[in-house]
Amino acid sequence: MATYVKDFSEGDRDQKDLLGGKGANLAEMTRLGLPVPPGFTVTTEACRAYMTTGEVPLELPSEIDGAVRRLEAAMGRRLGASDDPLLVSVRSGAKFSMPGMMETVLNVGLNDTSVVGLAQTSGDERYAWDSYRRLVQMFGRTVLGIEGDLFSAALEKAKSDRGITVDTDLDAEALRALVATFKAIVTAHTGRDFPQDPREQLTLAVVAVFNSWNTERARLYRRRERIADDLGTAVNVQTMVFGNLGDDSGTGVAFTRDPATGKTGDYGDYLVNAQGEDVVAGIRNTLSLHDMEQIDKAAHDELSRIMNQLETHYRDLCDIEFTVERGRLWMLQTRVGKRTAPAAFRIATQLVDEGLIDMDEALSRVSGAQLSQLLFPQFVPGADTTLLTKAMAASPGAAVGAAVFDPETAQEWAATGKDVILVRRETNPDDLGGMIAAVGILTARGGKTSHAAVVARGMGTTAVVGAEELVIDAAAKTMVCKGRTIAEGDTIAIDGGTGEVFLGDVPVHPSPVATYLEEGLDAALAHADDEDEAELVKAVDRLLTHADGARRLRVRANADNAEDATRARRLGAQGIGLCRTEHMFLGDRRVLIERLILADSDEQKQASLDALLPLQRGDFVELLEAMDSLPTTIRLLDPPLHEFLPELTALSVKVALAKAAGQVDPEDVRLLAAVERMHEANPMLGLRGVRLGLVVPGLYELQIRAICEATADRLAAGGNPRAEIMVPLIGSVAEMSLVRDSAVQIMAEVSKERGVTIDMPVGCMIELPRAALTAGEIARESQFFSFGTNDLTQTAWGFSRDDVEGSFFGQYQEAGILSVSPFETVDPEGVGRLVKIACTEGRATRADLHLGVCGEHGGDPESIHFFHEAGLDYVSCSPFRVPVARLEAGRAAITTSGSDSR
Amino acid sequence: MATYVKDFSEGDRDQKDLLGGKGANLAEMTRLGLPVPPGFTVTTEACRAYMTTGEVPLELPSEIDGAVRRLEAAMGRRLGASDDPLLVSVRSGAKFSMPGMMETVLNVGLNDTSVVGLAQTSGDERYAWDSYRRLVQMFGRTVLGIEGDLFSAALEKAKSDRGITVDTDLDAEALRALVATFKAIVTAHTGRDFPQDPREQLTLAVVAVFNSWNTERARLYRRRERIADDLGTAVNVQTMVFGNLGDDSGTGVAFTRDPATGKTGDYGDYLVNAQGEDVVAGIRNTLSLHDMEQIDKAAHDELSRIMNQLETHYRDLCDIEFTVERGRLWMLQTRVGKRTAPAAFRIATQLVDEGLIDMDEALSRVSGAQLSQLLFPQFVPGADTTLLTKAMAASPGAAVGAAVFDPETAQEWAATGKDVILVRRETNPDDLGGMIAAVGILTARGGKTSHAAVVARGMGTTAVVGAEELVIDAAAKTMVCKGRTIAEGDTIAIDGGTGEVFLGDVPVHPSPVATYLEEGLDAALAHADDEDEAELVKAVDRLLTHADGARRLRVRANADNAEDATRARRLGAQGIGLCRTEHMFLGDRRVLIERLILADSDEQKQASLDALLPLQRGDFVELLEAMDSLPTTIRLLDPPLHEFLPELTALSVKVALAKAAGQVDPEDVRLLAAVERMHEANPMLGLRGVRLGLVVPGLYELQIRAICEATADRLAAGGNPRAEIMVPLIGSVAEMSLVRDSAVQIMAEVSKERGVTIDMPVGCMIELPRAALTAGEIARESQFFSFGTNDLTQTAWGFSRDDVEGSFFGQYQEAGILSVSPFETVDPEGVGRLVKIACTEGRATRADLHLGVCGEHGGDPESIHFFHEAGLDYVSCSPFRVPVARLEAGRAAITTSGSDSR
Repeated sequence: MATYVKDFSEGDRDQKDLLGGKGANLAEMTRLGLPVPPGFTVTTEACRAYMTTGEVPLELPSEIDGAVRRLEAAMGRRLGASDDPLLVSVRSGAKFSMPGMMETVLNVGLNDTSVVGLAQTSGDERYAWDSYRRLVQMFGRTVLGIEGDLFSAALEKAKSDRGITVDTDLDAEALRALVATFKAIVTAHTGRDFPQDPREQLTLAVVAVFNSWNTERARLYRRRERIADDLGTAVNVQTMVFGNLGDDSGTGVAFTRDPATGKTGDYGDYLVNAQGEDVVAGIRNTLSLHDMEQIDKAAHDELSRIMNQLETHYRDLCDIEFTVERGRLWMLQTRVGKRTAPAAFRIATQLVDEGLIDMDEALSRVSGAQLSQLLFPQFVPGADTTLLTKAMAASPGAAVGAAVFDPETAQEWAATGKDVILVRRETNPDDLGGMIAAVGILTARGGKTSHAAVVARGMGTTAVVGAEELVIDAAAKTMVCKGRTIAEGDTIAIDGGTGEVFLGDVPVHPSPVATYLEEGLDAALAHADDEDEAELVKAVDRLLTHADGARRLRVRANADNAEDATRARRLGAQGIGLCRTEHMFLGDRRVLIERLILADSDEQKQASLDALLPLQRGDFVELLEAMDSLPTTIRLLDPPLHEFLPELTALSVKVALAKAAGQVDPEDVRLLAAVERMHEANPMLGLRGVRLGLVVPGLYELQIRAICEATADRLAAGGNPRAEIMVPLIGSVAEMSLVRDSAVQIMAEVSKERGVTIDMPVGCMIELPRAALTAGEIARESQFFSFGTNDLTQTAWGFSRDDVEGSFFGQYQEAGILSVSPFETVDPEGVGRLVKIACTEGRATRADLHLGVCGEHGGDPESIHFFHEAGLDYVSCSPFRVPVARLEAGRAAITTSGSDSR
Repeated sequence: MATYVKDFSEGDRDQKDLLGGKGANLAEMTRLGLPVPPGFTVTTEACRAYMTTGEVPLELPSEIDGAVRRLEAAMGRRLGASDDPLLVSVRSGAKFSMPGMMETVLNVGLNDTSVVGLAQTSGDERYAWDSYRRLVQMFGRTVLGIEGDLFSAALEKAKSDRGITVDTDLDAEALRALVATFKAIVTAHTGRDFPQDPREQLTLAVVAVFNSWNTERARLYRRRERIADDLGTAVNVQTMVFGNLGDDSGTGVAFTRDPATGKTGDYGDYLVNAQGEDVVAGIRNTLSLHDMEQIDKAAHDELSRIMNQLETHYRDLCDIEFTVERGRLWMLQTRVGKRTAPAAFRIATQLVDEGLIDMDEALSRVSGAQLSQLLFPQFVPGADTTLLTKAMAASPGAAVGAAVFDPETAQEWAATGKDVILVRRETNPDDLGGMIAAVGILTARGGKTSHAAVVARGMGTTAVVGAEELVIDAAAKTMVCKGRTIAEGDTIAIDGGTGEVFLGDVPVHPSPVATYLEEGLDAALAHADDEDEAELVKAVDRLLTHADGARRLRVRANADNAEDATRARRLGAQGIGLCRTEHMFLGDRRVLIERLILADSDEQKQASLDALLPLQRGDFVELLEAMDSLPTTIRLLDPPLHEFLPELTALSVKVALAKAAGQVDPEDVRLLAAVERMHEANPMLGLRGVRLGLVVPGLYELQIRAICEATADRLAAGGNPRAEIMVPLIGSVAEMSLVRDSAVQIMAEVSKERGVTIDMPVGCMIELPRAALTAGEIARESQFFSFGTNDLTQTAWGFSRDDVEGSFFGQYQEAGILSVSPFETVDPEGVGRLVKIACTEGRATRADLHLGVCGEHGGDPESIHFFHEAGLDYVSCSPFRVPVARLEAGRAAITTSGSDSR
C-alpha cells in the first residue's frame, strides 16, 4: 500500500527519501521524546504520484483527514475551531535542501470565525488579526498565485493612510480592515472567495507545495545541483506555536559547537517576543544563549540539555531552531550543521576524542575541498581594501606584489627578492619563466582552464584570470581599470579564492596547514599563532595519516623537472605520473627544435637531434635522481611542432609591414613559409602526440635514448632509477606497436653499450575515445595506461578547452546544461564510461595492466572517488594537490560510494 | 590430429583456410578428374605451428616423406633420381592472394647427379643444366638468403666473357660452368655447400616459404589489406611439367570469357616451347587460342572442354594457367578471374540467363565501387595527350574546359555556354557559385576531404586536388607547371579517376549508365553506341532493380537546395537525410549573418533575424515542394559564426598595412575586433552546432519558424510536406531538451497562427562520442538519430580532417597504420562501436527511434554494409552516389556478412 501520510511519531531520520530532510529530523526528535509540536508529513510518494498523474492521489484527502483528526485528538483542539483553534504550518521539505526554492504557508486554519477564537484564547486581538492577515497574504501569493505586489501595495497604503511607517504600528482595527482588503484582492483575482474551510485551506496548501517542486526556478536549481527531478518533495504539516505572545515567549537558533572554529559549547541567538521571520529580518538585536539563561532559566536549561542530547545522538554538530511559547520550549527543526573548513577538521577529531565516532567516520566528515581551502594564505578578514575588479578565481591563495607586465621584468625583479604579480593579456609557454618567478598571476583573458590558470594551479601559484575590465598595454607597461591607471611597480593584491583584484597592499595571513605539509608537524606547531591553529594542524595530520593508511589508490604527481618532483615528494607523492617533456624544449633550447623543423637536409635534422640528446639526458638524470626508487613516467613529445614557432598572424603582419617598408628579413620570409606550411585549422586534432613520433624521423628515438642513457647513468651512480616511457595520443594498436618495437630496440642497444640491463615499462595515454574503445587491442602492446582525461573530455564532448570554457560555459551553467565544468570534475556518463570500458577491456587482455590518470582530474575530489571505483591503481596531479588527493583517496576507500547518490 | 600435409586428391575448393587459395583450387581440379600434375599441400596449420614455436613441427618431415613417397609411386619416378628424376615446384599459397609477396622455388630435386639423368631423359643437355642453374640461383636467393645480385652479376659475366647478350645463347657447357660458379657463391656465403639431398632441398624450401610469410614487406602488405597476421601460408609441392621441351610443348593463360567486356568465348595467350616466366616476360609474341588450335588441335580441344567444365563448375569466369608437355595438357592453376566493371555487370546477368546463378548471386557479384566507375564519362583510351601533372583523384570523371582562376569568371563564362574548369589554390565556401558552374575543379592544395574534394563529390563534378606542382597566380590569372604557363581560357583536361591533368583537348566518351540513371532505360538504349553498351545498360537496370527489391535500408540524399533534391529524387533517393542550412547564408545573404554577429543592440540583432526569416522560408518551400511526400531532414545551423567573417590573418595584415599607410577604414578595425573576439584555436571543437542555437538568442527559433511556416505554405498549396528538424552537435540530453521544447512551442504557435496542424519529428545528429555514449538518455528527447560519422570520426580518433588527411595520412598508410582513411570507410572498432552502442541504447529507450546516417560514409560501399548490420533505417549520401548506395544496400541485405571475414 502506498504511504502518503505519516505522523511525526511514525518516522525516523533514515527516512529522508520518503519524508524529506526536515520531516525525517522532526520524526527523529519526536521519537527521542523531545518537545516537537505535533504534526505529520505528506510524503514524497504522494508528490511523485501527483507529478505522474497530474492529480492528487484518490486516497490522499482521506489520509490527511485521518492525520488531522489524530492531531486534533492529541492537542485537544480542532483545526480552525471558533474556540481556541488549532493552527498549522505547511512547509515543503525535500530530500536535499533547496534553500529559497519552495514554499511555506503559516497559520492555516484561520478564517473569519477562528480569528475571533484566537483573539479570545490569546487575549491579543491585534496578534490574531495580524496572523489572519499573514495567512491571506501568504496563501494568496503561494497557493492562489496572485501577484505578491498587490498585497504589499495594499499594506503600504494602509500604513500611509494612517501616517505610520512600521507594520507593527498597525492596530487590530487597521489589520481587520486590511484582511477585508486582502480578501477582496483574492476574490477579484481568482473569481472566488478566500476559502473559509480549514480542510480546504490545508489541501490547497499541500498541492501548492507539490507544484512548487516543478517551477522553472526549482528545476534550474536541481539541474545545477544535479538533483533528480523525480524525487519530489514532502510536505510537513505542524501545529503552530508562537514566540510572539509576550515576554515569556521568544524564538531562536543555536549550534552545539561553534561552526566557525569547532570550539565546543552552545552558540546561538535568541529574540524575546518574536517569530522566526523576525530573527531572519534582523530588526532587533538578538541575545546570546547566556543572556537567555538570565531571562528564562528553565527554558534555557532544557534547551541546553536537548542540545547535548542531539549532539550525542547525531554524533555531530547540530543546527537547531526553537520557539518558547509562554515559557514552554518547542523544537522546530534540527539538522547536522554546516561549518567552515578549519571547524570541519577540528570537530571531526574532537568527536573521535570524545568517543562519539571512529577515525573512518571522522575522515568521511572532512573533504579534499575543505583541505584545499586550508592550504593557501588568506587576506586578513576585514582589512581595508580598494577593490579594482572581480574576475575568475583560477588558482587559490592571496598574493601581494608589484605589478609587472612582461616575464623578463618579473624574473629580474624577483631575482632581487621583490614579490611581483605578472599581469598579461593572456599567457603562453614563453611566459613560463616569469610565471615561475611571480607570486601571483593576473590575466585579462581566458577561463579557468586557460594556460595561465592551468600552469598556476600546477605550481600552486595564486591566479586570477579573465579580468575583462582590465585594459593592458604591455608596450607602455600599464593597465587601466575603470579609468584608474596602474603602472609597472605599483602594488596590487589578488585573491585567488574569490577572484578579487585590489589596488595597494592587503595584509596576508599564512596557512599553518601549508607549513605543516611543507615542513612537517613540529615546524607547523612551532609556528602556530595560537591553540586553535595548533589544534587544526594536529587534526589535519591525524586525518591525513589515517587516509594514507586507508587508501588503495596511490598518489603521484605531475612534475616536469627535478625541483617540482622534489616538492611533490615532500608533499607525499609516490611517483611521477606525468613528466611533460615539451617544457624541456622551451627557452634557450627552442632554437634547436626550430632548427629541426626548418632543416633543409637530413644532416641538419640529425645535427639538431644530436645537440638535443645530451640536454634531454641531463634533464632525465636530474629527474630520476630526485625520484630515486619511485616510478617516474616520462611522456614523449606531445604538442604540435608549430607551437615552437612564432604565431602565424603576428608573423604575417610583421612580414607584410616589412615588405611595405622595403626592409624584408629573408629569414622571416623563410620562417613564415614554414609557419604557413605547418599551420593547422584545429591543432588539437592535428599532427601531435604519437603522430609526431611516427612522422618525424629520429624524434622519439632521441627521447627514448635519452631516457635509457639517463637510466644507465643513474645505475652507474648507484641509484635506483624507475623511468617509464609513455606514448601520447595513441588511437590504434598499430601506432603503439611501432613505438614499442622501437623502444625495445633502443633499450637493448643502450643496455649493450653501457653493460647494464634496461627494461622499462612502455605504456600509453588513453586520451582519445578510440583508444578507450579499442583498449583491449592496445593492451597487447602497452604495459600501462594513463588516462589523459583532459583530452578525453575535449574529444568525447567536442570541447576545445581553450575556446569553450571562457566562451559559452557560463551560459551553459546558467541554463543548467552543465552543473560543473567537465574539465574540473570527470563526467561519469561520457568520459567516465570510456575510462571504465578501457579499464575492463585492457585488463581482460593483460591482467597486470597498470592503470592511472594524469589529467587534471587526478586532483579533483569527486573525480578521485570515480577513479577509485573504476579500479585505477593511481592518480597523478599537480604537486600542490597531492595532499588533497591523498585525503580523498582515503575517503574513497572507506565509503562504498564516492559521491552522493543523487 | 593435426593436418600438416594433404595430397591434392584429398582436398576441395572450400578448404582455402587450410590449403590456401591455390592449393584448394588444385585439389578441386584434381577432384574433378582434370589433368593436374600430382602433388600435395603443406597446410597453413603447419605454418602456424612453425610461427608459434619457431620450429618445424616434429611430425612434418615424416608426413612430407610419406607424401613424396606417394607422389613417387604415382609418377613411377623418384625425386632427384639419377635416372629420369622427379622434380617438383615449391610455391606459397595463402588464403588471400598476396601478389609478389611470397616465394617460389622450381626444379627442386636437381643435383649434380640428377641433372645428368634429366639431360638423358629429355635428350636436351642445355635444358637440364639451365634448369639446375635456375634452381641454384632461386634456392640461393630465396632459401639461403644470398643477395640475388651476386648471381645476376655472375650470369652477366658469363655472357660478356662469351660475347653474347641473351641468356638463351648460353650453351650447355657455359651453363655447366655457371652452375659451378653459383655453387661456389653458395659455399662462400653460407659456409656450406649447395645441398645435394633432394629431401633436404624440399624441407628447406618449405621452411623458406613459411619464413616468407613474416617478412617486413609481407607484414606491411597485410596491414594495408587488413589480412590477419596469424593466418599463415600453405605450401604447394607439385610435380614439374615443362612447356619448353620442343615445339610439341608450350604454356599459356586463358579466360573463359573476355574479362574486359564479359563476352562469352575462350580468351587466352599461348606460347610454343616456353615456360610460364617467358609468357610474363613478353619476349616473344603470344598466339591466340584459335592459333593454338591450328598447331595442336588435341590439346586445344581438351583445354576448351576443360574450360567449359570449369566455368559451369565454378559458375563464374575462370582464369586458367596451363602447360603442354610434349603434346600432353596439364592444368597448373585456376581461380575465379578478375574483370572490369562493365564485364562484371554483363557477366553476372549472362550467368543468370544461362541458368547458372540466380539474381541474388548475381547481385553479390557486382559492387558499388564497380557501379561508380560506370557513372562517369571517360577519356577515350589511347588518345594523344600532353600530361601536365598528376595529383589526387578527388572526384571521378573526365572534364575538358577553359581554365579559369576565379569563381566570378567561371560563372560568367559558363552562362555563355562555355565549359570551364575552375583552378584555385584551394577552395572555400565563397567559391561555391563558380564550382557549381564549372565542369571540373582543380586545386593546388588539399587532400581527398578538402573543401574542393567534398563539394565536388557531393555535386558529382570531376575534381583533381593537391596538384602541388602547380603555381597559381590568381591575380595574374595564370598558372605555371614545370615551366609551362597556362593562361585564362587555355583548354585543359582533368581525369578525376586517375588524378591526371592534361594540357589541351582530350576526347571524352560519355557514360551510358549515367544516361540510364538520369533519363531512364529507354533513353539510354536509344543513345547506346553499340550492342555492348546496350547490354551493359540492361544489366545495370536488372541488378539495380533487384537490389531495390532486396534492400532493407532506405536511401536518402544530402541536398541543400531544390535543384539537388530534384536530381537526387530522379536518381532514386527516398528523401533528404541532410539539408545543410549554412549554404543558405552565403552569397548575398552573408551580410545578414555578419550584421547579426556585429550587432551592437538587440534591436539590430532582431532586424537581421527578421530579414532572414522570409528568405529561409522561401528556401524551405522550394525544398519541400521538390521532395513532396518524402521525408526531408533539415539541419539547424552548424558551423562557427566566424566562418561568415573574413579570415583573421588576412584581415590583420590588411589593417596593419592600412595603419602603416595612415589610411585605416574604421569599419575594418571594428570587423577585426569582432574577428579577434570570435577567433578560436580549434573551431571544430568550439562554439558551433547546438551551442550556437542555445547561446545566440533567436537564431534556431528563426530557422524552426521558417521550417514551420514553409510547411504551412505547402499545406495551403495542397502539398504533403514532410520536414524533420535536426539538431547538430548534441553532447547531452539537456541541450536536446531545450531545443526540442522550443521547437514544440514554435510548432504550436505556427499551427495556431495558420490554422493547420504542424507536428514534425525533432531529432539530432549523433556526431560526438559523448552523444553516442549517452544515447539512451538523449533518445528520451529525440525522435530520430542521424549519425554524423565525419565528425564522429574526427572526435573519436582526434583527427581534424582538414589537417591530417593531407598531412600524415599518406605516411600512416605507408606504415600500415591505416589501410584506408577512416573518413572514407567507417572504422568499425572505434566509430562503428559508438554507432552500435547508440543504436542499441537509443532503441532501448525509444523502440521506434528512427536511425540514419548522413555523413559521407553513407555513400561508401563497405560502410553501407556496416550500417545495414548495425540496424539503421536509412543511409543518406550525395545525390550522385544514390545509385551506388541502392546497389550496396541490396547487396548487404542478401549477404550474411558485408565484408570478407578477414
